[in-house]
Amino acid sequence: MNKIYIISGPAGVGKSTTSIRLAKQFDHSAYIEGDLINHMVIGGYLPPWESEELLSLTWENFADLSINFVQAKKNVIIDYVAFPEEVEKFSQKIYAKVKNVEIKYVVLWVDHAELLRRDALRIKEHQMGVRCLELVDEFESKGIDKRFVYNTTNIQPSNLNEMLSNIRENPRFNY
Amino acid sequence: MNKIYIISGPAGVGKSTTSIRLAKQFDHSAYIEGDLINHMVIGGYLPPWESEELLSLTWENFADLSINFVQAKKNVIIDYVAFPEEVEKFSQKIYAKVKNVEIKYVVLWVDHAELLRRDALRIKEHQMGVRCLELVDEFESKGIDKRFVYNTTNIQPSNLNEMLSNIRENPRFNY
Repeated sequence: MNKIYIISGPAGVGKSTTSIRLAKQFDHSAYIEGDLINHMVIGGYLPPWESEELLSLTWENFADLSINFVQAKKNVIIDYVAFPEEVEKFSQKIYAKVKNVEIKYVVLWVDHAELLRRDALRIKEHQMGVRCLELVDEFESKGIDKRFVYNTTNIQPSNLNEMLSNIRENPRFNY
Repeated sequence: MNKIYIISGPAGVGKSTTSIRLAKQFDHSAYIEGDLINHMVIGGYLPPWESEELLSLTWENFADLSINFVQAKKNVIIDYVAFPEEVEKFSQKIYAKVKNVEIKYVVLWVDHAELLRRDALRIKEHQMGVRCLELVDEFESKGIDKRFVYNTTNIQPSNLNEMLSNIRENPRFNY
């Protein structure tokens, strides 16, 4: 059965790295880099936190792309700051159109200190500073079901494969 | 009425530059960079000229994204090496699902010598050499209706706006 993995979490937790490595593990997969879909809008662009309309358009696009990929028998990995209410609407749309698909929702997490440490390691232009904690607060305020939250603070780079197996196989992430 | 512009042509004719500038002219627009959609496939990726299945998946994705954008009242600009048979299937899908939309098909063209001259101006890693003429041959072999072909060999950078107006307003490009 094909799966759709929604890899979420605040900025700086490693969504992209995790998503791409996960995508490479499958014989047939597609990687939806959420920010790219978002930025397809040129005239009238607003950041997703400023326009509900554009945010919901972005999710419509995620859904239609995912449906096409699943129908083409590919696992799908979506890399985006995804909150529970969006995942809920998305999954309703998917299950209405495709049978035989499983959705997994993973909110990657690292402790505050580690998030700031990793941020400081980036090249200057990519550093977010304390701004990366704002998204952390936003996630915390949404009261996400703890089973979806995956704290990776203590995972060493050498154990990344174990982490990916966990994402693939642990039923706690099943939406 | 919202419009979908398919900006096609061989590599090196200026599809991306033209598409992005066109997208920026509208208050509400979306830019679909075809190669990005294509490269969403990770596991099992094949270049479009080696897999009809993946090529048709890419066009399914173009269509669904375009439908969402048009329904959100945006003009759509698709930047891709698009041949007539693909444009035909795409437009059937669009017209079946959306009313009040117009599709424009523009095959950008430059003379061989100019194409090679422009290619030589690129940084080494992006140069295609004579390979860029192979796509020219492929376009020529498909017998594209001449009204869609826009030869821009003699258009000076200072006249780009005139070229964009022509793409927007000249009915010869209406599909």
